[in-house]
Amino acid sequence: MQRDILIRELRKLIPYNKIIVDRDILQKYSEDKSTVYVAVPDFVVKPTLVNEIQRLLLFATKHNIPVICWGQGTSVTGSCLAFKKPSILMSLEKFNRILEIDKENLIAVVEPGVIVGDLKKEVERFNLFYPPDPASYESATIGGNIATGAGGSTAVKYGVTKDYVTGLEVILASGEILELGGKVVKKSSGYNLIDLFISSEGTLGIISKIYLKLIPKPLKTITVYVTFSDMLPLLDSVNKILSSNILPISLEYIDDTALFYLNKKFNLPDKEKARASLIIQLDYDIEEQQEFLIIKLYEILSKIKGFLDFYPLAASSKEKEIWQARRAIGEVFRENFKYIAKADIVVPRGKILTAIDKIKTLAIKNSVDVSCFGHAGDGNIHVNFLINNENFNKNILQNVYKIVKEIGGLPSGEHGIGVLKKDILKDFLGNRQIELMQQVKQIFDPCNILNPGKIFNLSED
Amino acid sequence: MQRDILIRELRKLIPYNKIIVDRDILQKYSEDKSTVYVAVPDFVVKPTLVNEIQRLLLFATKHNIPVICWGQGTSVTGSCLAFKKPSILMSLEKFNRILEIDKENLIAVVEPGVIVGDLKKEVERFNLFYPPDPASYESATIGGNIATGAGGSTAVKYGVTKDYVTGLEVILASGEILELGGKVVKKSSGYNLIDLFISSEGTLGIISKIYLKLIPKPLKTITVYVTFSDMLPLLDSVNKILSSNILPISLEYIDDTALFYLNKKFNLPDKEKARASLIIQLDYDIEEQQEFLIIKLYEILSKIKGFLDFYPLAASSKEKEIWQARRAIGEVFRENFKYIAKADIVVPRGKILTAIDKIKTLAIKNSVDVSCFGHAGDGNIHVNFLINNENFNKNILQNVYKIVKEIGGLPSGEHGIGVLKKDILKDFLGNRQIELMQQVKQIFDPCNILNPGKIFNLSED
Repeated sequence: MQRDILIRELRKLIPYNKIIVDRDILQKYSEDKSTVYVAVPDFVVKPTLVNEIQRLLLFATKHNIPVICWGQGTSVTGSCLAFKKPSILMSLEKFNRILEIDKENLIAVVEPGVIVGDLKKEVERFNLFYPPDPASYESATIGGNIATGAGGSTAVKYGVTKDYVTGLEVILASGEILELGGKVVKKSSGYNLIDLFISSEGTLGIISKIYLKLIPKPLKTITVYVTFSDMLPLLDSVNKILSSNILPISLEYIDDTALFYLNKKFNLPDKEKARASLIIQLDYDIEEQQEFLIIKLYEILSKIKGFLDFYPLAASSKEKEIWQARRAIGEVFRENFKYIAKADIVVPRGKILTAIDKIKTLAIKNSVDVSCFGHAGDGNIHVNFLINNENFNKNILQNVYKIVKEIGGLPSGEHGIGVLKKDILKDFLGNRQIELMQQVKQIFDPCNILNPGKIFNLSED
Repeated sequence: MQRDILIRELRKLIPYNKIIVDRDILQKYSEDKSTVYVAVPDFVVKPTLVNEIQRLLLFATKHNIPVICWGQGTSVTGSCLAFKKPSILMSLEKFNRILEIDKENLIAVVEPGVIVGDLKKEVERFNLFYPPDPASYESATIGGNIATGAGGSTAVKYGVTKDYVTGLEVILASGEILELGGKVVKKSSGYNLIDLFISSEGTLGIISKIYLKLIPKPLKTITVYVTFSDMLPLLDSVNKILSSNILPISLEYIDDTALFYLNKKFNLPDKEKARASLIIQLDYDIEEQQEFLIIKLYEILSKIKGFLDFYPLAASSKEKEIWQARRAIGEVFRENFKYIAKADIVVPRGKILTAIDKIKTLAIKNSVDVSCFGHAGDGNIHVNFLINNENFNKNILQNVYKIVKEIGGLPSGEHGIGVLKKDILKDFLGNRQIELMQQVKQIFDPCNILNPGKIFNLSED
């Protein structure tokens, strides 16, 4: 169907002002944060009602037109881009109401377009806590977090997005509404269809309502910034901390490359000598306990060769700066380099150093710089090759995935597969698992209209 | 196929001594803890090797014979019983090695027949913690816990079985081996097939190896036993505790009926006046923190009308007795009553009282006694109608499910569906969800040989 005819047809389905055709505005929807893909959509629809989504899906199914969901475009795998023509890029950014903070049941009910940071803030007004905090939480949507299986720094202690979803309202490609779960926080009542939708990247259905478990807000937290001469003592420390009855909220590590570029903008402790740093966040009830934990941490760290210094930071501007710096790593790289080849890999926690060593060797061989940072408590490594020379080896990420596979890891910890990793997913999971996933997709989306060509290719893609 | 011919054929597939035909021994496999169903199997096979399971499944698929897994028979829904003839009842009780406690990666690798209590003990030797503790943990297997989506008292803070499974080796009906996940603790790499197997009650595949996430063992714990004049103030307390930045490990409640029968055997505090009691378990690092938490708890409780008394119990014989009593509720009822009609329902946490009130009214109408106890932090109610008169209303549980549905609950929180609840599952989930689940089953088990007739009926059952 031609663009103009398609737009005319869609105007019969949802109001005029919910279809964006202005080419300047459409540019905003042409790129995610992968820095790899560009795909200017023909138009964008912005439904705000369930029955608008239903009508759009029925129409798309009838005419076999792909439907791709957009939250805020913070995906890093090309997952939310509309590559095929024609396609319906469906932005849920206006589908963004916090419907209820149910204090009695400790449940939030929200629409998918709610910004995660807004939700976190709203929940805290009730003295409650929604822990997941991917680095992009101030701009990313909760729907996108669910679609990509987002994690964050608090996963060590509090788990990832998946652990908080108690219910979903999903609209299937057929227009049917599925009500999965709700305000009950545990269940053993048939197959777990909710978790099937998490990290399915909009390929199984459109999520229109979300029920999230909330927990009591920890009374107090403290951040400890720790510097090291190298990554080896840092990871040794992480091991020793987790073996000593301490379960921190966060264990974020930053390597020398990231520290170097961050220090152009921020003023991190031990600027001159630190070649690796660890951000530890702890929660506690009373000052004596904080003191106990800090002393215990110091006892562990001080025995480690290569430990440099230790900065306990209660709520302060310095603490804020440390976390701002941590979350700005991607941005700082984008400011300093033309190309960034990124991988969000996950390995068994004890294998982080093995992985990083092999990746650094790979970078040297390819004459590019690399940074490895991320979540030490979960074995999650954000690999960023930093490139200014256009003629870099485009297959460098393939080699990273080979390394990850060798040591028992997976190609994504919290970003998803999208387009970027779909060719390598099969290498990790094998043909049979991919085939099973494709069969599951066919149950929910028999005409393959929902985000086709993402995660894996179906024959008709 | 006739029993004798079948046994002869099976003896070609696995060693003679792994097929149990002794009718006395088979009695042990004829009942689970549902107290409702009896089905003496024709024989039991006890494979100890993956290729034995593969051979058995290939044979079963070829001859269209149902295969039902047995762990230790602690199911309460008839899920592990072999009702059809012929059937292969496959006990995994000898498939019970703890393969590895990987301290570096905080992962345990185990076979499905491992007793959960044995695993918990083994893990603690390494100063680590596997939190899930269903009441039957000292006799139930980890494979059964996964198959039924088991929870336990620690779910308030530490989640349920599902939250700890990072990998599964599964043998499909076709004999194929699927390796899902492994030692990585988070992932966003295609659809979540692992969680599909959790609470699927052996209907999708046979789990042959399990990877479990471990966490640092909390340094210290304390139990607080709290007595009330009634259930209303008890549940009011739970709400107030969870709104005050305290996240206990456990919030277990016991009603007047359960207290009455427990006190025939145990010596619980405030025997005479308590009509409801709450067991709160907290973890902490240092004594000052414990004191702080206890004072804070007391401040909350002392303002509540109907609060009676408060017993902080550090590790002691009294603490042990409290927990023994909590876990003995089912047993005590079985000792005092001929029939127990049980439901493991889950409702939004704030609706526990509404549910209990309606269920008690229902019991009065039917002239039977009822007990409601369970996990207040998760909205999970174990309903037990206590019956000595054979002519009781057999449909009483149907009325419970009606109540649960009205208030937005589900028919099982942590026990599964089995045979007991399969007829009512459709009322909760609707035809379309059941149909989707059945389609998922057909992908994994196209000939419907794996535990057919459990959770839901397929047309050919």
